Amino acid sequence: MNEIYDVVIIGCGPAGLSASINAKIRNKKLLLLGVELCSPKLHKTPIIYNYPGLPNIKGEDLRQSLIRHVESMGIEITKKKADGVYSLGEEFNILCGNETIRSKTCIIATGISYGNDIDGEKEFLGNGVGYCATCDAPLYKGKNVAIIGYTSEGEEEAEFLSEVCSKVYYIPMYKFSSKLKGNIEIINEIPLKIIGNKHASGILFNNSTLNVDGVFLIKETAPMEQLVPGLELYEKHIKVNRNMETNIPGLYAAGDCAGKPYQLAKAVGEGQIAALSAVSYIDKMKH
Amino acid sequence: MNEIYDVVIIGCGPAGLSASINAKIRNKKLLLLGVELCSPKLHKTPIIYNYPGLPNIKGEDLRQSLIRHVESMGIEITKKKADGVYSLGEEFNILCGNETIRSKTCIIATGISYGNDIDGEKEFLGNGVGYCATCDAPLYKGKNVAIIGYTSEGEEEAEFLSEVCSKVYYIPMYKFSSKLKGNIEIINEIPLKIIGNKHASGILFNNSTLNVDGVFLIKETAPMEQLVPGLELYEKHIKVNRNMETNIPGLYAAGDCAGKPYQLAKAVGEGQIAALSAVSYIDKMKH
Ligand SMILES: Cc1cc2nc3c(=O)[nH]c(=O)nc-3n(C[C@H](O)[C@H](O)[C@H](O)COP(=O)(O)OP(=O)(O)OC[C@H]3O[C@@H](n4cnc5c(N)ncnc54)[C@H](O)[C@@H]3O)c2cc1C
Ligand SMILES: Cc1cc2nc3c(=O)[nH]c(=O)nc-3n(C[C@H](O)[C@H](O)[C@H](O)COP(=O)(O)OP(=O)(O)OC[C@H]3O[C@@H](n4cnc5c(N)ncnc54)[C@H](O)[C@@H]3O)c2cc1C
Repeated sequence: MNEIYDVVIIGCGPAGLSASINAKIRNKKLLLLGVELCSPKLHKTPIIYNYPGLPNIKGEDLRQSLIRHVESMGIEITKKKADGVYSLGEEFNILCGNETIRSKTCIIATGISYGNDIDGEKEFLGNGVGYCATCDAPLYKGKNVAIIGYTSEGEEEAEFLSEVCSKVYYIPMYKFSSKLKGNIEIINEIPLKIIGNKHASGILFNNSTLNVDGVFLIKETAPMEQLVPGLELYEKHIKVNRNMETNIPGLYAAGDCAGKPYQLAKAVGEGQIAALSAVSYIDKMKH
Repeated sequence: MNEIYDVVIIGCGPAGLSASINAKIRNKKLLLLGVELCSPKLHKTPIIYNYPGLPNIKGEDLRQSLIRHVESMGIEITKKKADGVYSLGEEFNILCGNETIRSKTCIIATGISYGNDIDGEKEFLGNGVGYCATCDAPLYKGKNVAIIGYTSEGEEEAEFLSEVCSKVYYIPMYKFSSKLKGNIEIINEIPLKIIGNKHASGILFNNSTLNVDGVFLIKETAPMEQLVPGLELYEKHIKVNRNMETNIPGLYAAGDCAGKPYQLAKAVGEGQIAALSAVSYIDKMKH
């Protein structure tokens, strides 16, 4: 059986990094999962005036300071994306592609995607629409699927699916210039709507329709309720109390995903609280 | 009539400083009140490992960075202690000694005093026991009072009272070496208990009793419920929700005074949230 972690932190933005610092100081066995550059939002921020102690700092400079802080404490960032978090009562199973990670507690710090949904996305979710191609691949063996990629991660998912499906269409929603391996057709149009009856059956574009058996949307972060079945939300965010506890015992949230305002100091403060709450939960488990 | 502020922030520790940065960015007319060196706790902290972005920083260095940050934005720290915060519905009156400050909103960021109460302190509060000598001076004209000073601020209060009272005793609870003006007797003993019947009438020491008409305790911060009448508490802290709103509309709290864990990143994050909540409250008032 796999080793079991004390805390798995999902997301390596300011909230997740702060959580990791505090879990590490409390000597917990932790795993910090993150995709992309930790975090793209921070990287994009031109200049930050309101991170106390570091006035007028470039987003990229603060990003690097945070990463250096974490690394100086011997914390590694594991470049994996969590696809699902399942509470089994005494422990959590966290799915990353086809790997299962075990942990006593889990902190969600995945940020929030500012983008809007595509028409039909929510409607057909679970019925021909999904957010993790690798997870659902077996369902689409020998079939036609489309992947709408919001980040370059979509390319890997497309290549993986092309080994399993009979035809894969890739619709990049970002500046795309790479070449893809396998039998993949690139579509450079904006998808307007996912269509279908009870099950998704295609994508509508401005002047055309693409018929497929399934559609995957590869976003920087999946909708929260998809990531954690049974998670209680409050106005599109994860519902938490002042201790950053969610409705699921042992599960915490911090940062943008836990509500407005979307701000750095808040994210960092909440990451700290979430980690300390997880620590005291673990310490109570022992007795 | 005095000018009216948008936000008055009480306390210049990490929480109050963070609140001031965010109120200033939002262009609000703000007043930042603080006693002592902003903050004594930070000043005392040998080394901090968990303030993200500034690894292994001395408390005093972080303290100076925060102050520099605030000053670089043109925010002044007004060296005054708030003695009382009164909600009048549309505005707050904040008492500092015998000055009244008006504000649309108020953020309490006074930290928390780790010290215990003296026996009898709570019992006789309002009946011969108080936390602000300057405020209550008229009541003790020509009488005998004792001042228990937890900080050097007690010295000024003693000197002020000596102009009004017939006799003032000063009991320093810190390393005291100054000389005091006026008719003040220094007592270098530890007070064990405040005694009296319905009204405080004296202080009990190890081998003696001191008879007085009133006792003032000058602490770094007064108990929260004293500072703001009607403020709802939760386990000794100010009760707040996720927006840092208290039970009094327009009044917010942040940092240690708003609950555990007592930590810097949390204080700074909460200061930010409180300021942004105050800003949106003010913006709504206009309509
Ligand atoms: C242009 C811009 C300017 C801004 N300016 C300011 C400012 O001046 N001041 C301020 O305070 N705030 C500012 N912000 C907001 C600030 O960037 C965010 O509040 C902050 O980054 C939130 O931190 P977070 O850790 O919650 O989420 P994020 O920073 O979004 O980080 C989340 C991380 O988790 C990763 N992740 C997501 N899902 C998964 C998964 N399933 N598995 C593994 N990893 C995952 C993401 O790739 C990302 O790296 C700005 C934002 C933008 C976009
Ligand atoms: C020895 C020590 C080590 C610590 N180490 C760490 C650490 O490693 N990491 C960490 O995260 N935290 C640490 N902390 C905790 C941290 O210092 C506090 O959580 C933090 O200072 C809280 O900030 P605050 O703004 O809420 O309150 P404070 O820092 O207490 O500031 C409150 C300020 O308000 C002023 N004030 C109070 N009442 C009034 C009034 N009526 N009018 C005007 N001004 C008023 C006070 O004088 C003070 O300056 C440590 C604390 C101590 C004592």
